[in-house]
Amino acid sequence: MPQVSPDPDLPLQGWRLRLYTIIFEADTRAGRLFDMTLIAAILLSIAVVVADSVPALHERWRQQFTWAEWCFTALFTLEYLARLACTRRPLRYATSFFGVVDLLAMLPTYLALLFPGAHALIDVRVLRLLRVFRVFKLTSYLAEYRGLGRALQASARKIIVFITGVLMIVLVMGTLMYVVEGPANGFSTIPTSVYWAITTMTTVGFGDITPKTDLGRFIASVMMLLGWGTLAVPTGIVTAEMTSQRLSATPAPTTRTCHECLTEGHLPEALYCLHCGARLPHWHHEPRH
Amino acid sequence: MPQVSPDPDLPLQGWRLRLYTIIFEADTRAGRLFDMTLIAAILLSIAVVVADSVPALHERWRQQFTWAEWCFTALFTLEYLARLACTRRPLRYATSFFGVVDLLAMLPTYLALLFPGAHALIDVRVLRLLRVFRVFKLTSYLAEYRGLGRALQASARKIIVFITGVLMIVLVMGTLMYVVEGPANGFSTIPTSVYWAITTMTTVGFGDITPKTDLGRFIASVMMLLGWGTLAVPTGIVTAEMTSQRLSATPAPTTRTCHECLTEGHLPEALYCLHCGARLPHWHHEPRH
Amino acid sequence: MPQVSPDPDLPLQGWRLRLYTIIFEADTRAGRLFDMTLIAAILLSIAVVVADSVPALHERWRQQFTWAEWCFTALFTLEYLARLACTRRPLRYATSFFGVVDLLAMLPTYLALLFPGAHALIDVRVLRLLRVFRVFKLTSYLAEYRGLGRALQASARKIIVFITGVLMIVLVMGTLMYVVEGPANGFSTIPTSVYWAITTMTTVGFGDITPKTDLGRFIASVMMLLGWGTLAVPTGIVTAEMTSQRLSATPAPTTRTCHECLTEGHLPEALYCLHCGARLPHWHHEPRH
Amino acid sequence: MPQVSPDPDLPLQGWRLRLYTIIFEADTRAGRLFDMTLIAAILLSIAVVVADSVPALHERWRQQFTWAEWCFTALFTLEYLARLACTRRPLRYATSFFGVVDLLAMLPTYLALLFPGAHALIDVRVLRLLRVFRVFKLTSYLAEYRGLGRALQASARKIIVFITGVLMIVLVMGTLMYVVEGPANGFSTIPTSVYWAITTMTTVGFGDITPKTDLGRFIASVMMLLGWGTLAVPTGIVTAEMTSQRLSATPAPTTRTCHECLTEGHLPEALYCLHCGARLPHWHHEPRH
Repeated sequence: MPQVSPDPDLPLQGWRLRLYTIIFEADTRAGRLFDMTLIAAILLSIAVVVADSVPALHERWRQQFTWAEWCFTALFTLEYLARLACTRRPLRYATSFFGVVDLLAMLPTYLALLFPGAHALIDVRVLRLLRVFRVFKLTSYLAEYRGLGRALQASARKIIVFITGVLMIVLVMGTLMYVVEGPANGFSTIPTSVYWAITTMTTVGFGDITPKTDLGRFIASVMMLLGWGTLAVPTGIVTAEMTSQRLSATPAPTTRTCHECLTEGHLPEALYCLHCGARLPHWHHEPRH
Repeated sequence: MPQVSPDPDLPLQGWRLRLYTIIFEADTRAGRLFDMTLIAAILLSIAVVVADSVPALHERWRQQFTWAEWCFTALFTLEYLARLACTRRPLRYATSFFGVVDLLAMLPTYLALLFPGAHALIDVRVLRLLRVFRVFKLTSYLAEYRGLGRALQASARKIIVFITGVLMIVLVMGTLMYVVEGPANGFSTIPTSVYWAITTMTTVGFGDITPKTDLGRFIASVMMLLGWGTLAVPTGIVTAEMTSQRLSATPAPTTRTCHECLTEGHLPEALYCLHCGARLPHWHHEPRH
Repeated sequence: MPQVSPDPDLPLQGWRLRLYTIIFEADTRAGRLFDMTLIAAILLSIAVVVADSVPALHERWRQQFTWAEWCFTALFTLEYLARLACTRRPLRYATSFFGVVDLLAMLPTYLALLFPGAHALIDVRVLRLLRVFRVFKLTSYLAEYRGLGRALQASARKIIVFITGVLMIVLVMGTLMYVVEGPANGFSTIPTSVYWAITTMTTVGFGDITPKTDLGRFIASVMMLLGWGTLAVPTGIVTAEMTSQRLSATPAPTTRTCHECLTEGHLPEALYCLHCGARLPHWHHEPRH
Repeated sequence: MPQVSPDPDLPLQGWRLRLYTIIFEADTRAGRLFDMTLIAAILLSIAVVVADSVPALHERWRQQFTWAEWCFTALFTLEYLARLACTRRPLRYATSFFGVVDLLAMLPTYLALLFPGAHALIDVRVLRLLRVFRVFKLTSYLAEYRGLGRALQASARKIIVFITGVLMIVLVMGTLMYVVEGPANGFSTIPTSVYWAITTMTTVGFGDITPKTDLGRFIASVMMLLGWGTLAVPTGIVTAEMTSQRLSATPAPTTRTCHECLTEGHLPEALYCLHCGARLPHWHHEPRH
C-alpha cells in the first residue's frame, strides 16, 4: 500500500501519522484490524456482484444487494479519501495502479447515481465487470505477486519470443486448415481457423469446430502432437538427464545377447552369460546402436 | 495405523499385546496376513458398490451384493471394535481421520437397518458415496502419502498464492466474457462464465459453452495461451537453462554471414569464411541482436 | 535382436554363423541391408492394414492388399524359421516378447487360411489388430527403449503410488458427481462418473458428459484445478527455485514506499528515496509480509 | 539476414556497400529504419490477408485491400531485387530458406496478374496461404530462433525416438478402439481411430468421436492417464527429488505411533511421545514400509 505524507521532507505527524499507521501499515493491532476488515469487504462485495448476476438471486435479493453495494461504495470512498488526505501529490496516487483500481471500486455506483438512465447507456453487465476489478486490490496484500512480477520482467524477452513463435505457428497452421477444410466444414475465415488452431495447440479442444477431411485430421494430429509435445519433450529430456546422472555409476550394458537364454545386456569384455553361464559369441565390432 | 494401549504409561500386555501386534503391526506373519485380508476386503467392497450402481448388474445380483455388503460391514465393525478395545482414549481415535473413515465404512449399512425407510430419506446414491470413502483406509498402507502430505504442507503458502492468482484471473476473465458474449451465447451468469473460464484456462475445454463472437474468441485465445503457457513457458525456460549450460563450452557464434556462400555464424575475429574460404566483410560494431 | 546358437557351449560355425551374422548383427553390409529390408517390410505391412480398413480403399484394392499380405507373411515366416533354426532352445525364443510378436506377425493370415470361415468366427477387425502388433518389432532397433524400460522399472513404485492416488481421487470425485448430478444429467452409473472424472482431471474434456447443476460445476472446477495444478504447481515451484537462486545476489527490497513518488522497494537502511530523493518515513518494525 | 558481395574476394565497395549496410546491417540509423519499415510492412500485409478472408470485410474494402497488396508486393520485390543485386551467386540466395520465403512473398500477386483466371485454377484460399508464409521473414530478426534451431538439432534423436514411441502407442490403441467400438460408434476406420487416439493422448479431447461402450471407455481412461501422466509423472518425480534434497537434513521420522494421543512420526530411539509424554511401545523391528 502506498505510504504518503503531506510534507515531502518531514515524516508524518499527529493525527495524520495515526491515520497513516492504521491504514498503510499493519504492524499495530488497529492496522491489522483495518486490513482484515478491508479484505473481508472486498471479498464480500465481489460475492455480491457475482450473486447479483444470477437472475434468481437478483430477483429475490435486489434490495439487499443494492444496500450492500452502497455500504461497500461508502467504505471504499472513505478509504480513497483517507489516502488522498495523507498525500501532497494526490495526482500521483490517483494515476498509479492501485489508485485506478480504487477509483474503479467506487465508480459504478456513482455512475448509476449521477446518470439515472445509465443502465440504458452502459450495460449493467459492464458495471458488474468494473466492480469485479476490485479483486485486484487484494494483490497488494501478498508480497509474492511482486516477486512474480519481477520474475516475469526478468524473463520478458524469452516469453515474448516464445509467444511470437507460437503465434506464427498457429497463424500458418490455421490458414492451412482454412485452405484444406474450408468454410463448408466450419473454417469460415482465417481468424476463425486461427482460433481453432489455438484451441488445438493449447490442447484445450472445445470441439465447436473440428476437421472433417482426412488431410485436415492429419494436420490436426501434427498440431496436437506439437502442442502436447512442447510440454512432454522438455519434461522428458530433463527427467532423462536427472535419471541418467543417477544411473551413471552403473556401466552401460551392451546389446550382446546370450545364444542360450536370450539374456541381453552383457558387458563388452564378458566371456560367459551372466544369467545361465553359457559361452557368449565372439564380439566383432561396435554394437548396432 | 494408530497404535493404542489401555494403560497410557505401560506398554501393551497379554492378549491385548497379541491382538495389537496382529492388527497394528505388520512385522509378524499373522500381522501381514491381517493386512492383506483387510486390503482385499476394502477393494472388494468398493467393487461391489461400483457394480451395484449399474442398473443391469443391480437387477441381476441384488441379493449377492446385499449379502456381500453385510459381510464387509461385519468385518469392518470387528476391526473398529478391536481398535477401540485396545485404547484407553477411544474418543481420540474416533475423532481422528482414520477413525472417521472407519466409522463411515460401517455406517451406511446400519443406517439402512435402523431406518427401514432410509432409502427414502437418504438417497441410495449418497449411501454409495459413503461406502466409497472406505478407499481412504488404503492410504495408511503407503508411507509415500505421508511424505506427500508433508511436502504439501511445506509448500502450502506458495500453493495458496498460486491458486489465489488463478482464481483472480478466471474471475475477471470470466466476467469479461460474460460482458462480451452475454446470456444469449450461453454465458448466462458470472458463475457460469467463471466455470467456462476455468475449463478454458486448465485446458480441459468441455465445449458445452463456447464463445461465438469474434471478440469473445479473441479473449478466449488469450486465456488458452495463458493456461497452456503457464505450463510451457517454465518448462521451456528450465530446459533452455540446462541445454545452454551444456552447450556453453562452445563459443557463441555471431550473425556474421559470408558474402559468397551465405554461411552464418562466424566468430568475431574471423577473416575468412569457415565454409568456403571467401574473405568476410569488415565487422563494424556489435551484432544486431 | 536375440542371438542364438545350436551348441550352447561353442560359438556359431559355418553357414549358421553366416546366417546369424546377416540376420542378427548389423555390422556387415549384408546385415544392415537385411535390417533395412525388414523395417521397410514392417512399415509397409502396417500401412496395408491401415489402408485396408478404409472401405473405399478396401473396395478398390482388395486383391493387391491380399497379395501384399501374403508376401509379408511369407517374409515374416522365413525370418521366424531362420531364427528358430539357429537356436537349440526354440521354446525360449518362442515365449520371449519378440518371439510372441513375430508369431502374431504371421498368425492372422494363417488363421484365415486354415479356417475359411474365420472371418465369421473372428472379426476381421480383430485380425487387423493382430497385424498392427507387428509394429512392436521395431522397438528392437532402438536402444533408447531399453533405457526407457529400465528407467520405468527404477521408478516403478513411485509411479504406482502416484497412479493409485489419482485413481482414489477420481473414484471419490466421480461418485460425488454421481450423487450431485445423477442419471438425469448423464452421470448414469459410478463407472460412467469415474470415466467423466478421468476426462476432467487429465484435462482431456471430451464434453460427452458435462455437469449441469451449479454444485456439480463447482466440483468440476475443483477437479479441473486439481488436474491442471498437478502439472502447473510443481513446474512453477521448480522454476521459482531456479529463478530465486539466480536473483539471490540482489538483496531483497522491502515494501517501504516513498511518500512523494510512491516508488516501492527501498532497502531497510535507506533514508532518502532512490527515485526522487525525498526523505523516507521512519521505518518502524518488520514489513507487513 | 544474408550478407552478399559481388566480388567474393573483396569486401563491398561504393554504392553497393552503402546499400548493403542499409539493407543487411542494423548498426546504422538508416539500417534500423529500414528494418522497422520492413517488419511493419510484413505485419500489415499479413493483417490485410487475414482481414480479406472475412467475407464482410472483403466486401467492404476489396479495393483498398487490392491496392495494399500491390504496395506490399512492390516493396517486397524491391527488397528481393536489392538482395540479388548485391550478390555474385544469386542462385544460392534464391534457394536458401529466406530466398524462398521472399519469393513466396511476391508470388501470389504476380500469379493473379499473369494468369487472369488464376483464381479459377488456384483457389484464392491457397493464394492467401502463400501470402501468410511471409510471417517467416520475421524469424531472421530474432536470434533466439537460431538458438532454438540448434537446440532442436542437438536433441533430434531423442525427439524422434519419443515421437516414434507415441506413434506406436496411438496406432495400437487406436486400432484396439476400432475393434472394441467399431464403425457404429464413430470409429469407422483405423486412421479415424488413430486420429481419436491422438486427440485423447495429447489431452486435447475434441469430443467429435467418443467411446460409447464400457470397455471402450475403460481403454480411453487408460490412454488419458497415459497422456496426462507422461506430463505429470516426470514433473512430480523431479519436484520430489528437489524437495527431498531440501528436507534431507531433517531425519526421517518413523511410523511409530503413540498409544495415547495417536501422534505419528517418532524417531526410532524415542522412549516417550514427543507430543504428550506418554511412554511409547517397545519398537520391535523395521517399520512396515
